[in-house]
Amino acid sequence: MNMTKTSTDAPLSKADATALILAAKAAHGLTWEAIAEGIGMSPVWTTSAALGMNSMPLEKAQALVALLDLPAAVVPALVAFPTKVWDQAVPTDPAIYRLYEIVGVYGETLKEIIQEKFGDGIMSAIDFTMHVDKVEDPKGDRVKITMNGKFLPYKAW
Amino acid sequence: MNMTKTSTDAPLSKADATALILAAKAAHGLTWEAIAEGIGMSPVWTTSAALGMNSMPLEKAQALVALLDLPAAVVPALVAFPTKVWDQAVPTDPAIYRLYEIVGVYGETLKEIIQEKFGDGIMSAIDFTMHVDKVEDPKGDRVKITMNGKFLPYKAW
Amino acid sequence: MNMTKTSTDAPLSKADATALILAAKAAHGLTWEAIAEGIGMSPVWTTSAALGMNSMPLEKAQALVALLDLPAAVVPALVAFPTKVWDQAVPTDPAIYRLYEIVGVYGETLKEIIQEKFGDGIMSAIDFTMHVDKVEDPKGDRVKITMNGKFLPYKAW
Amino acid sequence: MNMTKTSTDAPLSKADATALILAAKAAHGLTWEAIAEGIGMSPVWTTSAALGMNSMPLEKAQALVALLDLPAAVVPALVAFPTKVWDQAVPTDPAIYRLYEIVGVYGETLKEIIQEKFGDGIMSAIDFTMHVDKVEDPKGDRVKITMNGKFLPYKAW
Amino acid sequence: MNMTKTSTDAPLSKADATALILAAKAAHGLTWEAIAEGIGMSPVWTTSAALGMNSMPLEKAQALVALLDLPAAVVPALVAFPTKVWDQAVPTDPAIYRLYEIVGVYGETLKEIIQEKFGDGIMSAIDFTMHVDKVEDPKGDRVKITMNGKFLPYKAW
Amino acid sequence: MNMTKTSTDAPLSKADATALILAAKAAHGLTWEAIAEGIGMSPVWTTSAALGMNSMPLEKAQALVALLDLPAAVVPALVAFPTKVWDQAVPTDPAIYRLYEIVGVYGETLKEIIQEKFGDGIMSAIDFTMHVDKVEDPKGDRVKITMNGKFLPYKAW
Amino acid sequence: MNMTKTSTDAPLSKADATALILAAKAAHGLTWEAIAEGIGMSPVWTTSAALGMNSMPLEKAQALVALLDLPAAVVPALVAFPTKVWDQAVPTDPAIYRLYEIVGVYGETLKEIIQEKFGDGIMSAIDFTMHVDKVEDPKGDRVKITMNGKFLPYKAW
Amino acid sequence: MNMTKTSTDAPLSKADATALILAAKAAHGLTWEAIAEGIGMSPVWTTSAALGMNSMPLEKAQALVALLDLPAAVVPALVAFPTKVWDQAVPTDPAIYRLYEIVGVYGETLKEIIQEKFGDGIMSAIDFTMHVDKVEDPKGDRVKITMNGKFLPYKAW
Amino acid sequence: MNMTKTSTDAPLSKADATALILAAKAAHGLTWEAIAEGIGMSPVWTTSAALGMNSMPLEKAQALVALLDLPAAVVPALVAFPTKVWDQAVPTDPAIYRLYEIVGVYGETLKEIIQEKFGDGIMSAIDFTMHVDKVEDPKGDRVKITMNGKFLPYKAW
Amino acid sequence: MNMTKTSTDAPLSKADATALILAAKAAHGLTWEAIAEGIGMSPVWTTSAALGMNSMPLEKAQALVALLDLPAAVVPALVAFPTKVWDQAVPTDPAIYRLYEIVGVYGETLKEIIQEKFGDGIMSAIDFTMHVDKVEDPKGDRVKITMNGKFLPYKAW
Repeated sequence: MNMTKTSTDAPLSKADATALILAAKAAHGLTWEAIAEGIGMSPVWTTSAALGMNSMPLEKAQALVALLDLPAAVVPALVAFPTKVWDQAVPTDPAIYRLYEIVGVYGETLKEIIQEKFGDGIMSAIDFTMHVDKVEDPKGDRVKITMNGKFLPYKAW
Repeated sequence: MNMTKTSTDAPLSKADATALILAAKAAHGLTWEAIAEGIGMSPVWTTSAALGMNSMPLEKAQALVALLDLPAAVVPALVAFPTKVWDQAVPTDPAIYRLYEIVGVYGETLKEIIQEKFGDGIMSAIDFTMHVDKVEDPKGDRVKITMNGKFLPYKAW
Repeated sequence: MNMTKTSTDAPLSKADATALILAAKAAHGLTWEAIAEGIGMSPVWTTSAALGMNSMPLEKAQALVALLDLPAAVVPALVAFPTKVWDQAVPTDPAIYRLYEIVGVYGETLKEIIQEKFGDGIMSAIDFTMHVDKVEDPKGDRVKITMNGKFLPYKAW
Repeated sequence: MNMTKTSTDAPLSKADATALILAAKAAHGLTWEAIAEGIGMSPVWTTSAALGMNSMPLEKAQALVALLDLPAAVVPALVAFPTKVWDQAVPTDPAIYRLYEIVGVYGETLKEIIQEKFGDGIMSAIDFTMHVDKVEDPKGDRVKITMNGKFLPYKAW
Repeated sequence: MNMTKTSTDAPLSKADATALILAAKAAHGLTWEAIAEGIGMSPVWTTSAALGMNSMPLEKAQALVALLDLPAAVVPALVAFPTKVWDQAVPTDPAIYRLYEIVGVYGETLKEIIQEKFGDGIMSAIDFTMHVDKVEDPKGDRVKITMNGKFLPYKAW
Repeated sequence: MNMTKTSTDAPLSKADATALILAAKAAHGLTWEAIAEGIGMSPVWTTSAALGMNSMPLEKAQALVALLDLPAAVVPALVAFPTKVWDQAVPTDPAIYRLYEIVGVYGETLKEIIQEKFGDGIMSAIDFTMHVDKVEDPKGDRVKITMNGKFLPYKAW
Repeated sequence: MNMTKTSTDAPLSKADATALILAAKAAHGLTWEAIAEGIGMSPVWTTSAALGMNSMPLEKAQALVALLDLPAAVVPALVAFPTKVWDQAVPTDPAIYRLYEIVGVYGETLKEIIQEKFGDGIMSAIDFTMHVDKVEDPKGDRVKITMNGKFLPYKAW
Repeated sequence: MNMTKTSTDAPLSKADATALILAAKAAHGLTWEAIAEGIGMSPVWTTSAALGMNSMPLEKAQALVALLDLPAAVVPALVAFPTKVWDQAVPTDPAIYRLYEIVGVYGETLKEIIQEKFGDGIMSAIDFTMHVDKVEDPKGDRVKITMNGKFLPYKAW
Repeated sequence: MNMTKTSTDAPLSKADATALILAAKAAHGLTWEAIAEGIGMSPVWTTSAALGMNSMPLEKAQALVALLDLPAAVVPALVAFPTKVWDQAVPTDPAIYRLYEIVGVYGETLKEIIQEKFGDGIMSAIDFTMHVDKVEDPKGDRVKITMNGKFLPYKAW
Repeated sequence: MNMTKTSTDAPLSKADATALILAAKAAHGLTWEAIAEGIGMSPVWTTSAALGMNSMPLEKAQALVALLDLPAAVVPALVAFPTKVWDQAVPTDPAIYRLYEIVGVYGETLKEIIQEKFGDGIMSAIDFTMHVDKVEDPKGDRVKITMNGKFLPYKAW
């Protein structure tokens, strides 16, 4: 749909916005951490919204566009509600596969522990936050991922 | 392989051991948390080993068998190195699916953040620990999952 | 695991409980509607718990066991938290496939309408109820399914 | 097939029509609800037809084109009978996945309840309507989805 | 569930009923055509119900049981509403694959022709009958399959 | 491969030919039935050849090109032997899915009936014809599909 | 269905017959080639029928049962028309995978060559024979597989 | 990558080469058999190399380019070592599916016969040749495919 | 097929033999390395044959049976030619998945390097040996896997 | 995204870099071995980085660009951390499939041997090197692949 892109009022897709953000991020030599700090949000959420997997409130989208000197058309693309799609039922990239493997190996364990502590229900993936920290260690630094999701009990009716 | 089971010295499979542990856990009215405390290990690891997804060091297996009054044949089954198999590439149980969904939605984000902090590489799922905590909240309690894995940089040669 | 079943204190699985409920339902000539009324719950929830897809609070499980003259061992099986598994990514039974088809045909439409009314987020399938009604119609009776799920907004952090 | 598009009499595809409708909807700042009201149809059906999953009767297509100031070539694209295709046997977007999960968890239950009320048969997904309502609730607003499909009994011959 | 089967009042499954019918059919040396004639129904429907893919009205189930000298417990199994499951998304048996191939090769053609004749809609697979005839031909006999399904128009609302 | 298309002697693909036929059919306001009559063949076969799923004998391709005022380059595309490809192992469009469902539900039944009448073998999908008729019915018109395929017995050697 | 097997007149399945043939073949120390010669048929066809993938004419089944001293109940199992099922869309055994690979690598080539020689159509896999020969070669013996299937032209109607 | 193609020294892909060969073959009115004869190789191998599934020795590639008046850039594309990819695990075109079906139905049989004649091992698909012949037959011509592959015994070490 | 197993001369399957070997290995407290040394073969090949993925020459099978005091019926099971089946197209156990990942990440690289060194062809997986060594390293011991397979050039004919 | 490419500061993708490297490698008539030597790294690693499956340290990327006379924009593309994706869960190219087959046939064996030598854990695919050698042999040259990965023991916590 090159036709659409060259027209003056064509809306930008989230993928277009992501490409522009990645280019500007490289041009400015900024990290995700710095960008997140620049708009006053967390790095995980900021990155996910920049990659098109979350929608930004208007003022955060405007802040990001200002920070990275992006065209104004990026704002509505960041604000739009995303359709979250991933292509590979089993991811291949090793960094992502390890997370998938953790779900496979520890999924039933987490279900047992969560339901023992809270009753029958789930940890929400919507009312949910996540942070990544670097834990320095002389035997090799460690990645610390902290997930925090609301517990939702099953309803009986 | 009923033949094997009825013979006096047939080894117990990990699945057999899990079934016996679950029955004894229910009979003793114990939680995973109490069992883990009883053998001096964390709840997540203890549960995963009891469900057959990790091998127990001999003394921990013996402690578990003593704690739950299990037959001695359970010890080698717990000590055996597991073959980790999960049947569903995409899990269906909602409590486990939400974890899978988090990998799908945030996988690329985590890769970006981890690699920005550490360089090209992955978080190990082997040199890895995990804990689950309950965060009380008047608007609804929250599940906190903390993962901690060694960063492994890719090698060039 | 016949060994377990023949032992006197072996726990009943949810599948065992379902089989016993279906046999008793047929023997008593009861409908799901009557069973649900007998335990003071809705038909959809009662049936789903009887089929092993939801857990029953203790008093409801006891009421069901009393109503259908089932052995006491059915109670803990009904109370247990289920692991929800379905075998077919695409269901084949026509009555179930039509529901799957509705998700395929109208899934994006529902997302558009829900997010237009509520903002970015989802309808919960956990904090969720459902009812089925018969709408009589001279041109052919109609099935009315009403779903009611809490709206969960995505969080920014 | 850009060649076709630039020619004067090339027919517009349903995907082209959808893109034009979405752009015009954004430009006019209209909701699906307002558009539906503007052509005198329901929001769910109107949205599904605009997204290419249903065909519009001629006068409704003309009304939509008038309402949104679209080119006349959109009319035949809206009137055309669609081939309904979805790419993912298991949808990934959380808002759509929850609907899929409801089919997985409650599919057999719905079959039991429907067939108990009506006899052996199915709820049609063709002679079918659907509405979405917002139910305000101080503990969090709720989504109400109402489906209404003709019951079709299996034939014996 | 051998336990259930050996108990005196255990219900027979549709698969059990099918096995008993096939054995009795072989023992009596009857064809499906003769059985169908014996109960006053068509061969296709009779066979599909005997194979567990349709439910029989009570009097037809009783007639079949009488005709084949089957135990009375077969009657409720034949009357039960089936859950229709097939294991292979793409069938392997050549006689069944050729039918699948016809759907693949001619599916879009049939959709074009049906919708041209009737408008947007489908041929019902529920309000549906089917017959198989042998057409003798000196160059090799031919199989004639006649399907007859109600046309269901899509609804706009 | 736009390069190829703009060159004077580039061959047209079957997909190109289909697109031209569909545009011309719409421009002339012709039905498949009328087109089939115009070239003296059946509607099902004519449509399948126009959609690229069968090859046309030279004189029929010429007749079609004449009837629809198509460029001469369409002739060799229609005459070419097709490679028959369908993308979805399980079709999603409801009109085509119902046919797939019939194969799933009645496949074993058809195999039983055909092999009872003819011996071990299959109905050919190659030496095969098919027709679609409209059966008017006050309770709702019905679609009649008649398939006719040569019986091929398995060979022993 | 142990119940059925222990009854005196229970029919033997094809899988049961195969197991008995393999045991008797080993006990008699016979090759497939010798068995085929003993019943006057080819080795490939005889083996496929013994493995349950083809049905035997009555006199050949009786000859096989006599040759291998099998119980009479094997005869109807060999005569029964098989339902041909294979579990793996992509076979894993290397000897079978290589044949699958040949179809993948040379499938389009064979289609081109066959259709160039015969016109649009296929080689039948039903009216079909196959032989395997050993070609001795000082550089390593070679396997020669010869397939012979009737050409079936597509029909136009 | 049109950019690449228009540059003077851009390498041609195998797919580009195939397209040029097919166009030249049609323009010259040559059969695969004639082309194969023209370069002194077999039709099956020549076709597979022209379709991009085998690499040509330099002199054969030059002979083919001379025979069909192709640009010199086709030579390195024909000489390049191919990466053999097929998209459909189960092919849909009937002419290719029948070959797949033969592997499914007769795969285990061929393994039995080959291993009986040669010992444990496989027929190579690399050190392999294949020919197709037309066998005229008044009851319908027949396709004869002859495969010849080196037997490779498994190694013990 | 319990029936077969309880008969006195029923052949042992490879899976039965593996179970007996694993039990005897544990009872004797032997490693695979010691067992391999005991029969004069390599550990990798010995283990693969014991796990049912290779056939043993008669004298090696007899040596293994003698070494582990196994019943004589294990010998023919070890000698039998295996059908190599694996259930998971993508393995889940982390130790095996890492090997799969290496094929995914480095497969094209290995193809490039091998074909650069040898010409167009493959490394045989049949005429193939493999060894595993432990490389001690103060920063953490390392696994060394050495594969050695015959290069097979593609044939032109 | 031709638009991007023609702009002066658009970043090059890894796929673009690979295409440029392959063209320059052909133009210079260099082997992977020579290129690897030219930048002082191993052939396997160099090839995998050139194919986009590993990231290059800056000085190696600069050396490669200098060696092959590539534009400077190739440097950041080589330095970027790759997302490793492969499209086929089961590879089809015979040279790559054989490696996959080795994982299928010998995966459990390797797990047994590695875990016997090292304890419960895995061979890392990240802290990993690999080499390919040609072993000359009068009976046919052999490919030798040597993998070397750090052993990672599972952690208990």
